[in-house]
Amino acid sequence: MKMIRAIIRTEREEAVINNLEAVGLYGITKMPVMGRGRQKGIQVGAIRYDVLSKLMILVAVKDNDCKKAIEAIEKGAYTGHPGDGKIFVQEIYKTYTVRSGEEKEK
Amino acid sequence: MKMIRAIIRTEREEAVINNLEAVGLYGITKMPVMGRGRQKGIQVGAIRYDVLSKLMILVAVKDNDCKKAIEAIEKGAYTGHPGDGKIFVQEIYKTYTVRSGEEKEK
Amino acid sequence: MKMIRAIIRTEREEAVINNLEAVGLYGITKMPVMGRGRQKGIQVGAIRYDVLSKLMILVAVKDNDCKKAIEAIEKGAYTGHPGDGKIFVQEIYKTYTVRSGEEKEK
Repeated sequence: MKMIRAIIRTEREEAVINNLEAVGLYGITKMPVMGRGRQKGIQVGAIRYDVLSKLMILVAVKDNDCKKAIEAIEKGAYTGHPGDGKIFVQEIYKTYTVRSGEEKEK
Repeated sequence: MKMIRAIIRTEREEAVINNLEAVGLYGITKMPVMGRGRQKGIQVGAIRYDVLSKLMILVAVKDNDCKKAIEAIEKGAYTGHPGDGKIFVQEIYKTYTVRSGEEKEK
Repeated sequence: MKMIRAIIRTEREEAVINNLEAVGLYGITKMPVMGRGRQKGIQVGAIRYDVLSKLMILVAVKDNDCKKAIEAIEKGAYTGHPGDGKIFVQEIYKTYTVRSGEEKEK
């Protein structure tokens, strides 16, 4: 399995989650974070914001579902402006479901 | 080393942490998150909750301690109802202790 | 690429971020967390604090930038007292930039 970590604009949350649902991916974990990319925050008139409020979404998917999950997130998160966010994919070594005791490798 | 990421019911926090302590694992990091699994939240009477408040716990363990950590978390987090949570295990490439400058590979 | 996850004292945030900037690393994500290490929190007079407020910082770097990022974080986070924090490095399988659609492997 893969752990997908997306850092997106907070206002794109609904679009991203709807897109994930549309491809059959319901399980998500999300949390508010602060962040910035290469452009070091944004300048709004005279004010510089060093870091911006973002939403981090974690989605664990089977290897075969990774591509469609990325596409769903990218389409939902996209505005075309700097700060649309990043998606990081990492390997999951093992996954356990607490209630069933079920264990999945890879 | 392995990074264990458990997403559990908030009310099972104490049981999980006590169980980890009982097997000699004291170091943890935790944060409140929102999440849902395959069942897409819960229905309580007429009200549907799309996402639920959960606790994410991160525990970094030596490879040899991984099994007992998983068991400790599973026993502490278990209620038998949907929403008991998930545990994801990932490889840690390197670990550093800031105070000592100590570096551990694997 | 590597995902660096640093759990540091909240009051060392500015030093860590300044040090990362000084070596050309601007992109970060941060979030408040609660945590403790092997020493199980701290004792202040008669009061025991089980867990302490910490800051988690995530920095995604190219493999070649990993060493300088670790050094920057270690120097910024260091006070010499227990609780200075931990740094965990994990592999990133793939990285996507939402705005550009750019994909980076490794």
